[in-house]
Amino acid sequence: MSTTPQLSVQALLWTGHSLKVLDQRLLPEHIHYDEYQDGPGVAAAIRAMQVRGAPAIGIAAAYGVVLSVQQHFPAADWQSRVAADIATLAASRPTAVNLFWALDQLRQLLAENPVEPLSAVTELAINIHQEDLLANQAMGERGADILGDAKAVLTHCNAGALATGGYGTALGVIRSAYQRGKLESIYADETRPWLQGARLTAWELAQDGIPVTLLADSAAAWLMKTGQIDWIIVGADRIAANGDVANKIGTYSLAVLAKYHGVKLMVAAPSSTFDFSLADGSGIEIEQRDSQELLHKIYLDEHSRVTAWNPVFDVTPAALITAIVTERGSVINPGLHGVKSLAL
Amino acid sequence: MSTTPQLSVQALLWTGHSLKVLDQRLLPEHIHYDEYQDGPGVAAAIRAMQVRGAPAIGIAAAYGVVLSVQQHFPAADWQSRVAADIATLAASRPTAVNLFWALDQLRQLLAENPVEPLSAVTELAINIHQEDLLANQAMGERGADILGDAKAVLTHCNAGALATGGYGTALGVIRSAYQRGKLESIYADETRPWLQGARLTAWELAQDGIPVTLLADSAAAWLMKTGQIDWIIVGADRIAANGDVANKIGTYSLAVLAKYHGVKLMVAAPSSTFDFSLADGSGIEIEQRDSQELLHKIYLDEHSRVTAWNPVFDVTPAALITAIVTERGSVINPGLHGVKSLAL
Repeated sequence: MSTTPQLSVQALLWTGHSLKVLDQRLLPEHIHYDEYQDGPGVAAAIRAMQVRGAPAIGIAAAYGVVLSVQQHFPAADWQSRVAADIATLAASRPTAVNLFWALDQLRQLLAENPVEPLSAVTELAINIHQEDLLANQAMGERGADILGDAKAVLTHCNAGALATGGYGTALGVIRSAYQRGKLESIYADETRPWLQGARLTAWELAQDGIPVTLLADSAAAWLMKTGQIDWIIVGADRIAANGDVANKIGTYSLAVLAKYHGVKLMVAAPSSTFDFSLADGSGIEIEQRDSQELLHKIYLDEHSRVTAWNPVFDVTPAALITAIVTERGSVINPGLHGVKSLAL
Repeated sequence: MSTTPQLSVQALLWTGHSLKVLDQRLLPEHIHYDEYQDGPGVAAAIRAMQVRGAPAIGIAAAYGVVLSVQQHFPAADWQSRVAADIATLAASRPTAVNLFWALDQLRQLLAENPVEPLSAVTELAINIHQEDLLANQAMGERGADILGDAKAVLTHCNAGALATGGYGTALGVIRSAYQRGKLESIYADETRPWLQGARLTAWELAQDGIPVTLLADSAAAWLMKTGQIDWIIVGADRIAANGDVANKIGTYSLAVLAKYHGVKLMVAAPSSTFDFSLADGSGIEIEQRDSQELLHKIYLDEHSRVTAWNPVFDVTPAALITAIVTERGSVINPGLHGVKSLAL
C-alpha cells in the first residue's frame, strides 16, 4: 500500500510530449487544463498566472525546457534555441527563486549532455516534480510535529497542492496536522487581489473534506485579537541566507500582527526556495503587477487620477518568524542564526 | 462668496416629501438615486448598504422619521406607527451609534410636540444634516492643522462625502490638507469585502480632481515598511468614553501596524459618534454580515465545508490612536485620558 496521499487535484500533468496545466484562474468554477508543447507556451502560462506558486512554477519551467529540447533537438542550432526558451522561461516571473533554481539545474545538465540531452533533461524534470511532492510530505510531518497540540491556524494565499508538485507546503503541514486529529479550526485569508485563498485554498481543502473558514485579509488582526488562532502557516517564494522570507503580499503584515499578538508564524518551503546568494531579503526583486488587478477595469481614462500600487510580494524579516520548515530540517527562531544550517 | 466647498457628489437628497438615496452599491459604474417616501423604505436602504457610513446612516434615519410622520400623522394611532418605524430604523444596522443618536433626538422631539410634530421633526432632520456638513468642514481644518507638513497619508474604507452629510470626516481632513498644498500622496485601501475604498473613495476623490492610489488591504504594512506614509486617517462608527474606536474591519489591523512602524493614526468623527454610555470598546456590538459577501456565491451546498467569518467592524484601543478629531476639538493621545474632555 502506498503511503502517498491520494490527491484530488494536480496543477501539472506531464504526458511525455506535453504539459497539461490546470488553469487556476478559472477555479473553483471550472476545472480546465490547457496543453502546452513548447517552452514559450509554458512561460506564457506562468506569466499569466495560469499556474502559480513558487514550487509549481519551478516544476512547470523544468517541463518547459524538456518541451523545448523535444522541439529543437537535433537541429543545428538547437542549443541556441533552447537557450532562448530558457531565457523566456526565466523572464516569466521575477520573485520566486524555485524558477531559477530549476532552470539552472537544467542549463547545467544540457551543458554536460550536448549529444544526448533529451533523456537526461526529461529524467531531471520528472525528478524535480517527484522530489517536490516528497519534500512536501516530509515538511507536512515535520511541521505537524512543531504545531503539537495547536488547535487553530490561519494560512494566507495558496501554498497547497495547487502551488507545488502536490500535497502543498503550508497546506501540507495543515493536511498532516488535520490527519492527526489535532486541528479544529483552519482559517484562510481570501488574499487579494487574486483571491488565491478564496478560490484555491478553500476549494482545495474542501476537495479533501477538510473544513475551512474564509476571512477578509484585513480581518486577520481581529481574529488574532479575539484569540482565535495559535499559528499562522505560510509558504515562501524566496528565503535569503539570514532567514528573511519573500512571500505573497500580506505575509509581512501577518508577521507583524502575529508578533504583536503572541501568535506564532511558521514558513514551510522546500530547500529549493533558499537563495544563499542573498545575505538578506533586501536584494529580492518584488514583482509589481498591472494596476488593473486592483482597479477592476472601472477607472480608465476619464478617471486617470486613480492609480494603483500593486506589489504582489513582500519580505518578512527573519526575526518575526517562529520556525522555517523544509524537507531537510527546521530552524526555530531563524532571526537568531539564519538558515545556513540547512544548506547542503 | 460661499465658503462651503462645492461638492460634486451627495449621498442623500431631501426633496421635502421624499428622500433620494444614491445607490452606493452601483458606484462607480452607475449614478442612480432611489426615492423613498416612508420610514421602512429608508431602513431597508440602510440595511442593504445602499447608503452607508455612520454619519450618513444617522442623517438618512432622521429623514426616515420625517417621512414616517408625514405618512401617519394625524391618524389616531400615528404615534405607535411612527414608533414602529423608528424601531425598524434602529434595527437596520447595529454598530454605528450615530443612527441611535439621531433617532433618540427625534423620539424626544416627538414626545415634546404631540400636537404639531411635523415641522419640528423636519427642522431637526435638516439641521442634523446641515450640522454634519459644518462639522466635517471644521474637522477638515482642524485635522489639516494637526497633519502639518505631512506629505503622504493612507485612508481605509470611505469616510467621505458619500459617508456623511457632505465633505467627509477622514476625507474631509484629506480634502482640506490637499487644498493647502501639503499632501503629495493619498493612498486608499481597497477595503474588502465591499471595496468601499476602490469603488467610493477613489471615485469621490477623482470627482474632485484629487489624485489617489489604491492598494490591496494587505499591502498597507509594506507601504509603511517602505516608508511611504506619515499618517493613517480613518473615520469612526462609535467611540467609547475611553477613546476606543469601532470602525470598518481592518482599522484595528492598521492601528497595530502603524504603531509598529511609527506611523501616526488620526480618527476624524463628529461628536455624534461618541457613546459615553460605554466605558470602553468591549461593549460595542460588532456587526457580522452574510458569509456570501466573502464566498462569492461559489461555495454553496456541494462545498458546505467552506464557511466564512465576516465581521465588518473592529475595535481599535485608544492607546493605538495618535489623535481623535471632532468638530468640538481634538484629543491628542486619547489612550492617556479618553475623550471625556470633548463631552458637552
